[in-house]
Amino acid sequence: MDEPLRFITFEGPEGAGKTTQAVRLAEWLRARGLEVVLTREPGGTELGRELRHWLLHRPEGMSAEAEFLLYSADRAEHLRRVVRPGLERGAFVISDRFVDSSYAYQGYGRGLDLDWLRAVSRGIVGETWPALTVLLDLPPEEGLARLRGRDRLEGEPAAFHARVRQGYLKLARAELERFLVLDAREDPENLAARIREEVSRRWVLD
Amino acid sequence: MDEPLRFITFEGPEGAGKTTQAVRLAEWLRARGLEVVLTREPGGTELGRELRHWLLHRPEGMSAEAEFLLYSADRAEHLRRVVRPGLERGAFVISDRFVDSSYAYQGYGRGLDLDWLRAVSRGIVGETWPALTVLLDLPPEEGLARLRGRDRLEGEPAAFHARVRQGYLKLARAELERFLVLDAREDPENLAARIREEVSRRWVLD
Repeated sequence: MDEPLRFITFEGPEGAGKTTQAVRLAEWLRARGLEVVLTREPGGTELGRELRHWLLHRPEGMSAEAEFLLYSADRAEHLRRVVRPGLERGAFVISDRFVDSSYAYQGYGRGLDLDWLRAVSRGIVGETWPALTVLLDLPPEEGLARLRGRDRLEGEPAAFHARVRQGYLKLARAELERFLVLDAREDPENLAARIREEVSRRWVLD
Repeated sequence: MDEPLRFITFEGPEGAGKTTQAVRLAEWLRARGLEVVLTREPGGTELGRELRHWLLHRPEGMSAEAEFLLYSADRAEHLRRVVRPGLERGAFVISDRFVDSSYAYQGYGRGLDLDWLRAVSRGIVGETWPALTVLLDLPPEEGLARLRGRDRLEGEPAAFHARVRQGYLKLARAELERFLVLDAREDPENLAARIREEVSRRWVLD
């Protein structure tokens, strides 16, 4: 049987601990002698860093369609320059956010048509879908309290964050095998252990 | 019968005289007391101007997918901030390049799947398709000779420009009613007269 693609993504709201858990998993895999590419969206490429700056700090509004297309452009570059080269040489690629972020934020959050988001995404993602997506679920109030003033999305109304959360949970229910849903309020130590367990269940690491 | 949407686009290679003819048509319509919004892609919005700079002057390569998605993001903003508001208040909107540029350059030129380009574009263009598209057709050698050193696309191999030209002609053959195809080598005065004639044929201007 073919080994699943060594592509793992972390999803969830800002403040849920995605970066912390991604780093911990990367360190654990590296300690076992495995190569890991730890990356994120937006920001994994030069284009991504410029887009990240725009998307998070531009004062005036941008249409949800344009926002999604910019994230998708970044994703196309990120896949081509970082994700696929890493996977091709056998590394684990761990990305802090990927396509599900677009579905949750621009789709469920801002109300763009999910079928359109999927049609656009298919053309850039191709066969490079993550084999494991860790969703760190958190009630919106909690996530926001953790990171006052960090970025633009914080300024969105509570209803937006509630839609994003429900969207994430719907995506996870539709792909039970790919998603591992964890309560982000749990002890970080326990969360890291659950994630390692899930990784060991899917890949032979020795 | 409903009047056709007052949306006119100019297409063709760099050096074909699109800008000149777009300006002339705008002046002629304005002289008749009509409001005209003269715009272009990329560059019709703040986002567009930044993207234009990137797309035309970035030294390293970018994937054709990312390039197309950036143009599309610009297009979404352009439609929302410039094209639709102009049409809604009854103005003629004349755009130097629009969706057909993506089909010709990223589709026929760079080989991206036309069905994907169309699926992406449908989600941003919606009902706002131009009622008239003037294609200024020019053999590639001729266009390039007219503008040495102006932008990045000039550096593409001759085969690329030949594919773009053939792509434009295919698009025009598939939508005979929307396209007016003119030989860009004709006298600019004659071209302007042909374009005015076509506009008068489609819209009652008094």
